Amino acid sequence: MSYTKLELEPLFSKIEELKPQFITRLANAVAIPSVSSDEDKRPQVVAMAHFLQKELTNLGFTDIQLKDLGTQPPPTVNKELQLPPIVLARHGNDPLKKTVLIYGHYDVQPALLEDGWNTEPFKLVHNEAKDILYGRGSTDDKGPVMGWLNVVEAHNALGWELPVNLVCCFEGMEESGSLGLDELVAREAQQYFKGVDTVCISDNYWLGTSKPVLTYGLRGCNYYQLTVSGPGADLHSGIFGGIVAEPMTDLVKVMSQLVDSQGKILIPGVYDMVAPLTEKEDGLYDNIDFSVEELEAACGSKTGLHDNKKDILKHRWRYPSLSLHGIEGAFSGAGAKTVIPAKVVGKFSIRTVPDIDSGKLDKLVFDHVNKLLKELGSPNTGKIELIHDGNYWLADPFNDLFGAAAKATEDVWGVKPDFTREGGSIPITLTFEKELKTSVLLLPMGRGDDGAHSINEKLDVLNYINGCKTLGGYLHYYGKQ
Amino acid sequence: MSYTKLELEPLFSKIEELKPQFITRLANAVAIPSVSSDEDKRPQVVAMAHFLQKELTNLGFTDIQLKDLGTQPPPTVNKELQLPPIVLARHGNDPLKKTVLIYGHYDVQPALLEDGWNTEPFKLVHNEAKDILYGRGSTDDKGPVMGWLNVVEAHNALGWELPVNLVCCFEGMEESGSLGLDELVAREAQQYFKGVDTVCISDNYWLGTSKPVLTYGLRGCNYYQLTVSGPGADLHSGIFGGIVAEPMTDLVKVMSQLVDSQGKILIPGVYDMVAPLTEKEDGLYDNIDFSVEELEAACGSKTGLHDNKKDILKHRWRYPSLSLHGIEGAFSGAGAKTVIPAKVVGKFSIRTVPDIDSGKLDKLVFDHVNKLLKELGSPNTGKIELIHDGNYWLADPFNDLFGAAAKATEDVWGVKPDFTREGGSIPITLTFEKELKTSVLLLPMGRGDDGAHSINEKLDVLNYINGCKTLGGYLHYYGKQ
Repeated sequence: MSYTKLELEPLFSKIEELKPQFITRLANAVAIPSVSSDEDKRPQVVAMAHFLQKELTNLGFTDIQLKDLGTQPPPTVNKELQLPPIVLARHGNDPLKKTVLIYGHYDVQPALLEDGWNTEPFKLVHNEAKDILYGRGSTDDKGPVMGWLNVVEAHNALGWELPVNLVCCFEGMEESGSLGLDELVAREAQQYFKGVDTVCISDNYWLGTSKPVLTYGLRGCNYYQLTVSGPGADLHSGIFGGIVAEPMTDLVKVMSQLVDSQGKILIPGVYDMVAPLTEKEDGLYDNIDFSVEELEAACGSKTGLHDNKKDILKHRWRYPSLSLHGIEGAFSGAGAKTVIPAKVVGKFSIRTVPDIDSGKLDKLVFDHVNKLLKELGSPNTGKIELIHDGNYWLADPFNDLFGAAAKATEDVWGVKPDFTREGGSIPITLTFEKELKTSVLLLPMGRGDDGAHSINEKLDVLNYINGCKTLGGYLHYYGKQ
Repeated sequence: MSYTKLELEPLFSKIEELKPQFITRLANAVAIPSVSSDEDKRPQVVAMAHFLQKELTNLGFTDIQLKDLGTQPPPTVNKELQLPPIVLARHGNDPLKKTVLIYGHYDVQPALLEDGWNTEPFKLVHNEAKDILYGRGSTDDKGPVMGWLNVVEAHNALGWELPVNLVCCFEGMEESGSLGLDELVAREAQQYFKGVDTVCISDNYWLGTSKPVLTYGLRGCNYYQLTVSGPGADLHSGIFGGIVAEPMTDLVKVMSQLVDSQGKILIPGVYDMVAPLTEKEDGLYDNIDFSVEELEAACGSKTGLHDNKKDILKHRWRYPSLSLHGIEGAFSGAGAKTVIPAKVVGKFSIRTVPDIDSGKLDKLVFDHVNKLLKELGSPNTGKIELIHDGNYWLADPFNDLFGAAAKATEDVWGVKPDFTREGGSIPITLTFEKELKTSVLLLPMGRGDDGAHSINEKLDVLNYINGCKTLGGYLHYYGKQ
């Protein structure tokens, strides 16, 4: 498959010309504090859906539907709390064109000035010296969502037809577990989403800060909890220390035998399921734009486990990892409390990669933990459970989809993108793949240092505008195949 | 030393006769919610001090002083929060009589009906069928404090002189770390407390529910925290799992090597410092009224470490124990959170016994932990610290003090008391011993199942009234020596 450079200059110029309007559009979106995790802010999340409805209407989208998802399942304070709607819309319905489903989310993480923001988080601030836009949601994910609208506006301004049919699926609960989304996608697979040829998700980031990337893989995550129960209630360590078997002792013993300080998983059999590293794959890591220093800057310390780029990338993308997250039920405050916790719940998760079978992994974990529990010889009771799992995802970076996106990226940025994977998971990727039986592309707009869930979230104007061009270019290259 | 049965019958009869008044006195005390840990309730704690001042005045105490302890040290919400006063008072000042300092506290633990109380916690409810008084503070420690006042009232009613001079020291912060008490005791040692011959503390409980006890030993407590620091901020386990050394992994490894599931401390050298068990001491445990079933009832499970009374008592009283209390900084909520905590603080403590030297113990702990940390080969940083320590206490149960109390107990209850120790610590015991250079007696009033810090705290009327008789009898036997 080869791609000829298309005549996209007018589109790119128009996007440049409309930059002030596009920044205003993003500013209007950021101004709505659509924090999905805060029940009190739910009306603002809904207001954001209405904002999108109005924008989509003005841009000529049709069949716009705000899909009611019912009340939010417990735990909630307000028992009648309504989930924000999923916004569906179409642009074009030409059977001769391909149909691209674009996914994004219009809710954001919480943000307070007191958290350490330099500017009001729900006011988009354009730092002109740095040419950076600061504000909650600027990069995650209002920037990319506005990006899609901007692409349509540019086409409208040029009097161009879109090269594909678009189907929008914008949700308002992504930062809070995407409640209701899986069910909606399954429900609409043969309805609203019928005829979709491919899915494009712009909800992640470049690996670093200077080179565009296309993302073709994600790790999965199996999250476990180990509950150890003993006494009927918390006890005083003065009175009961030394005479009662303590659940914390047992839990910590087991947790200490899951992973070592070098990050090696100690559960027998896990590594046997990992796909072997081929020479071809090994070569891919050489050219990725990344460095040990970038990792150290990102984690704020020199406490990495690997001293070279290739090992870091392999362990982030293609090897499993096990993290101990914490313990529920034990003393967790500051200072000293002489408690013997009666019931403690250890939390840990394993990031999964090809070819780990999720069910087989569970069995290995359960067997290992149960064996360790037995060896303790404790009268306490242990119970290991899977809390949730999400599979890994791996696409072929040499397929047409990635080819089209790579060509667009090169047109816009002047460099070939890096093909990267991510250590985290984006569960909706798998949902779309499975329910719509189609391929998925992850096409990021922002940079690795945008601070998506942190303070002073930002989007470089260059990334916003070039991102719009890349999204638009991708539609053209993909549509022309 | 032998004791002749004194002619105490008139005193005991008078105490019986005054039972209704004594219950009313306790009801009036319980009605004041003097919760020291709740800043909003501080005025009620102070009101309780004024209640005592009035009672003491009516009973003929003199030189009554409400000692101002200044503002409460941070952390507090109200930066100007005043500590409740320590109430000092005297009764008698006869140089020919011995002087007994009686200590008690007038503050209580928090209590809410919603916690599971069957009755309003701050209303003393007399269940006449069971002849039990329910209410917060009934046994801890308003019952015993009122008990001392009742003894004086009975003497007044009989027209008897007290057999000793009394010095009261009643504090209002015992449930919140006895803030300011140590300093006051040191300050007043040669002032208000000059000439004190002995100290009697009634602020603990029988071992079981049927046999009175005198307490001659307490374990100490050295409380440690181990801080492991890595990344500059909490990280996402998807992005950083497998490439960053995780502080939780290191902390849990070290915590798992401090104690085993059978309660054995794994820090080399600790047991070498424990006083050997003599045949004589071993024999003492045979006659103590206690059973495995009582332990199981108290801890609400059959998860004890020992299957016989003697081992339970030895491990509660005369052997050290190590408890893992929890972890600060890790995920401690319900559900799943995929965090790599950047800095975690493990909390554990060791209950100390004769002849463990607190400073040497610290060194053993630090050396062991530092060795384990080193062996991990982790780039993270570990720091082990002592947060606080309090020494063990051991008195001679065959001294005059215990002899007098034993005689009084036998007069009242018709049985010789058990001589017991406790697993917990009562730091003020050591403070009095050290600052006043005098002996201390622990003379409990309530039973082992009174639920001192729990819901439905109670005091049997029999224990309240017989407790008053025992306190009074003790003063007579001690005074006549």
